[in-house]
Amino acid sequence: MKLDSAGLQVLTHEECMRLLPSRPIGRIVFTDRALPAVQPVNFCLDEQDIVIRTAAGSKLAAATRHAVVAFEVDDFDPEARSGWSVTVVGYARVADDPAELARLESLPLTPWARGRDHFIVITAVEATGRRIQQPT
Amino acid sequence: MKLDSAGLQVLTHEECMRLLPSRPIGRIVFTDRALPAVQPVNFCLDEQDIVIRTAAGSKLAAATRHAVVAFEVDDFDPEARSGWSVTVVGYARVADDPAELARLESLPLTPWARGRDHFIVITAVEATGRRIQQPT
Repeated sequence: MKLDSAGLQVLTHEECMRLLPSRPIGRIVFTDRALPAVQPVNFCLDEQDIVIRTAAGSKLAAATRHAVVAFEVDDFDPEARSGWSVTVVGYARVADDPAELARLESLPLTPWARGRDHFIVITAVEATGRRIQQPT
Repeated sequence: MKLDSAGLQVLTHEECMRLLPSRPIGRIVFTDRALPAVQPVNFCLDEQDIVIRTAAGSKLAAATRHAVVAFEVDDFDPEARSGWSVTVVGYARVADDPAELARLESLPLTPWARGRDHFIVITAVEATGRRIQQPT
């Protein structure tokens, strides 16, 4: 078990990819007019890719067109001061190939808000994660 | 009650600042070597400023020195597909004034990990938030 300088357990790539889909909500981190921006979204995985839905004209759709983004998922227990987080950095694109769209439509990904008829696919370049646990 | 184009309720500044401290964990969004980066941290408020702790030599401490950052807090109920998120955009700085440090030390902000002896203070320029609720 590898620890970082703060004593947090460094998760392996395999652990990151296993934990990632265990939560329904993640946070996409992007740049909007040169400013850091973040938006929570529900998501699912298409093999190793992260798939989210958004509205065609949204800030998120515009900002993530061929952009490098981060995507974060976490789960913490405030009482125990324990938990984990996984961050993927990757390339985002709007899916527009009809065959791909047909496959994405079949994913168990129901948008929580209306008008989210576009699919954004994030292909991971790197996945990193940490787990924190208090000494017993 | 103002709705955005996706039908989400737009929170007022007052609602954002009231909801912000209701969760113990937020996510600081910054730029690390020109790439989007995000890290969950426990935090508290010092009046309107967000205060977090980090280690002196950490990536977070280096990247947030006089930087514009975003800070996100959310709470979602996956069953009900409802919840809220608040994002603050502001200026981050390392606190180094002795009088300020003495005050920050007295805040109810216990680091979850070791070595987090630096205080980062984020002064909000803008706070935005959304609430999602399914029609009943």
